[in-house]
Amino acid sequence: VTLGSNQIVLIAGPCSVESRTQTLEVAHAIKEAGANMLRGGAYKPRSSPYSFQGLGEAGLEILADVRAETGLPIVTEVMAPEMVPLVASFADMLQIGARNMQNYPLLNAVGESQRPVLLKRGLSATIEELLMAAEYVLSHGNRQVALCERGIRTFETATRNTTDINAIPVLKAQSHLPIFLDPSHSTGNWQYVGAVARAGIAAGADGLIVEVHMHPERALSDGGQSLKPERFAEMVRQVRLIAEAVGRELTPVS
Amino acid sequence: VTLGSNQIVLIAGPCSVESRTQTLEVAHAIKEAGANMLRGGAYKPRSSPYSFQGLGEAGLEILADVRAETGLPIVTEVMAPEMVPLVASFADMLQIGARNMQNYPLLNAVGESQRPVLLKRGLSATIEELLMAAEYVLSHGNRQVALCERGIRTFETATRNTTDINAIPVLKAQSHLPIFLDPSHSTGNWQYVGAVARAGIAAGADGLIVEVHMHPERALSDGGQSLKPERFAEMVRQVRLIAEAVGRELTPVS
Amino acid sequence: VTLGSNQIVLIAGPCSVESRTQTLEVAHAIKEAGANMLRGGAYKPRSSPYSFQGLGEAGLEILADVRAETGLPIVTEVMAPEMVPLVASFADMLQIGARNMQNYPLLNAVGESQRPVLLKRGLSATIEELLMAAEYVLSHGNRQVALCERGIRTFETATRNTTDINAIPVLKAQSHLPIFLDPSHSTGNWQYVGAVARAGIAAGADGLIVEVHMHPERALSDGGQSLKPERFAEMVRQVRLIAEAVGRELTPVS
Amino acid sequence: VTLGSNQIVLIAGPCSVESRTQTLEVAHAIKEAGANMLRGGAYKPRSSPYSFQGLGEAGLEILADVRAETGLPIVTEVMAPEMVPLVASFADMLQIGARNMQNYPLLNAVGESQRPVLLKRGLSATIEELLMAAEYVLSHGNRQVALCERGIRTFETATRNTTDINAIPVLKAQSHLPIFLDPSHSTGNWQYVGAVARAGIAAGADGLIVEVHMHPERALSDGGQSLKPERFAEMVRQVRLIAEAVGRELTPVS
Repeated sequence: VTLGSNQIVLIAGPCSVESRTQTLEVAHAIKEAGANMLRGGAYKPRSSPYSFQGLGEAGLEILADVRAETGLPIVTEVMAPEMVPLVASFADMLQIGARNMQNYPLLNAVGESQRPVLLKRGLSATIEELLMAAEYVLSHGNRQVALCERGIRTFETATRNTTDINAIPVLKAQSHLPIFLDPSHSTGNWQYVGAVARAGIAAGADGLIVEVHMHPERALSDGGQSLKPERFAEMVRQVRLIAEAVGRELTPVS
Repeated sequence: VTLGSNQIVLIAGPCSVESRTQTLEVAHAIKEAGANMLRGGAYKPRSSPYSFQGLGEAGLEILADVRAETGLPIVTEVMAPEMVPLVASFADMLQIGARNMQNYPLLNAVGESQRPVLLKRGLSATIEELLMAAEYVLSHGNRQVALCERGIRTFETATRNTTDINAIPVLKAQSHLPIFLDPSHSTGNWQYVGAVARAGIAAGADGLIVEVHMHPERALSDGGQSLKPERFAEMVRQVRLIAEAVGRELTPVS
Repeated sequence: VTLGSNQIVLIAGPCSVESRTQTLEVAHAIKEAGANMLRGGAYKPRSSPYSFQGLGEAGLEILADVRAETGLPIVTEVMAPEMVPLVASFADMLQIGARNMQNYPLLNAVGESQRPVLLKRGLSATIEELLMAAEYVLSHGNRQVALCERGIRTFETATRNTTDINAIPVLKAQSHLPIFLDPSHSTGNWQYVGAVARAGIAAGADGLIVEVHMHPERALSDGGQSLKPERFAEMVRQVRLIAEAVGRELTPVS
Repeated sequence: VTLGSNQIVLIAGPCSVESRTQTLEVAHAIKEAGANMLRGGAYKPRSSPYSFQGLGEAGLEILADVRAETGLPIVTEVMAPEMVPLVASFADMLQIGARNMQNYPLLNAVGESQRPVLLKRGLSATIEELLMAAEYVLSHGNRQVALCERGIRTFETATRNTTDINAIPVLKAQSHLPIFLDPSHSTGNWQYVGAVARAGIAAGADGLIVEVHMHPERALSDGGQSLKPERFAEMVRQVRLIAEAVGRELTPVS
């Protein structure tokens, strides 16, 4: 999978790795629908210490198994500098979550790992701060950084976050790095994911990262913003048409 | 021109009516490029009392002349209840600006006028407040209300405002009223207008309102966010492809 | 009553004028507690057209009666330019509400009226925009303008608005106009009004405007943020100590 | 030094430890003026990787030396879980910076350290999220947590951040933990620090943390918001009067 080419990359999968069966099932479904990479959290940053915190290393092993069975490369979050070697030994791409965008020891550690990095914009980070955070990774000679708009915090409460669609052309103008959009977090509601996914590609995004779950109502986290596989497939069909309208195409599923 | 059908409506024109020549010239250019209606301000709400405040009634007369020559219906702003009869005698559609979204005497007055209304979202109005403001107009039996997302105020300073692209599917889900997007104000920078215009149509907007000026560098207001006619024409070409990708079409120029 | 001297001015009263009895009763109570002026809305800007909109001219007459009985000068809101002469014929000070801070025809009308003006900061107006709005009034030669911080809209939902306490020293540094704080609206919760009122005076505010109701639970608007008279009296006692700590005093009740 | 009693605690010192001489000089000055603890950063989280990042362990050694000479306990920031044992071996209180408020591995590590913690509110964290972050520390049996309001990010640009003064009474109502205010970061401008410090104590804060530098114009970081020692001394005099006005006193310098 090549990021930042004329071909758009689709990453999908559950918010959290909950079990081997759940992850394998959804991985087959998203691949069938057109996804190029699998996302899934083994370590989950949660506002409350009493919420589900992820399966940890067992989750990483599940992800590796599922990659072996489906061929889908894996994106997963790493939350602390000392965890980078372990997570990097399992993952194809390391995700820095929004809460950690300015966790500089962590940015330095993923910079040194030389693994591809998906850097999510902080909840109230300016575009300039996002580019500066990327600079922490780049300054270690790690050039494989993709930026991800995932919604910012504003006064509006009708949606969980506000998708800053302006950020896509602004980042395109100020940086050569590939830009992803995460419409699941940027809306917080599966009903709006399709419309905002289309908008992101229309605005010039190079990829999407979308939460998909076989049974959103039973998900251990983020169920309300997760698409069922058939709705994800419909989203892919619509996004393909938008990609063509802006002279691009979706990366074929290998 | 019918708003809210499967056909998308394009409104374009200068921020301010500056002269008959300027307005006529740009009106011909936008019609040629595919616009369905002409926008232009005769009364301008400006943060400073020392900025250009618009030509007033002379501006309205220019707009009426230009309509007569080009056949383009006119959208223009009205700022005070007692001005509604005058402005309504010239304009085809009355615009309520963002600063006046909660000016209830004005909403009541345009409601009573029975003229079509373009209601712009306030700078920090929630989606619910926008729908409540529309209710003021609707409660007078005036059903011809179009809502307009024009960017909200957030912490981000890379753009003048933040386009709340989520608002489009949210409003579609909560209301039957047609939804416009104003990418000129929602970005504040002509460079980003095209990308955000495409995003708006991809997300489901029923129309766009865009600032166009023959010589943006000489505009008396909003020059930095105004497109030159040839860039507007390019935007229309791109928007047409997006419209088709979502199963819609642009309203033909009559 | 002199605004902007070393003596701090306390304005209090109900959100809305609901009846003669209610207004007279609360006026006596606030005067007893130390208030210098009476506030009360006859025309109420409400988000929904179906909420109580105020008693209108009947409310103005009640306010004038209550002034005659108690000697308290009156502050009340005016919402439309054509209403300024009427409201100015009853009120000692005209309030421009937050939603109308950038209603320029209204600012021009109150400027021309030569009546003292209490100009409330818009919900998402910058300090610079507030000063520019004041400039509209001042440009008509009306120098009697007081500015009022009443909370801004942010992401925080624990309180109705966020009191921008920084605005007080910033406005003091940039302007000679007297600065009021409205802790009722800036918190939206009577429990926090006392603490924020003290903070405002400590930061240098020249006055407070506070909502007080005999029976907040029965108020037609803003009950949750209204103090009962005995709590208002306690607030005045605390504010007096803070005023003395910063070398000022409360304006004696005449 | 006891936090959260009726006695207010003043923490002061430079943004960054720059040298032994600079730190010792300012420590003597703030103690003379009435400060109870010394703050100073050895590890600095900076938006850009090319900005001064702090002296690291050498900075910690300077802080320990200065404590030995002045008797002032030390507060300093820790940025990564694996650094907690080292920093805790030097510091009396561990600071979690705003950018790390939701760095859960770090919160767990300081929780386990059983050291007192000063937890700063994130730039766009809600009050509820701040309390949840404290819960991470508390859940390890570490009860010595003080919360710190340090300004939130809003649309206003006249000040670096917006002091959320409401947060003080809200936190007092919802938690038993001591509440600090950092008027240096919450305003970003030394001119406004005194007014906002007074406001914080008037609103009920249990302490202040203030940046002081002998020569702010030469500071390696945050010079514009640092007080000179004589201005800090004046601030302490004013704050003492406010403390007395709310029935409290400053903690005597030992």
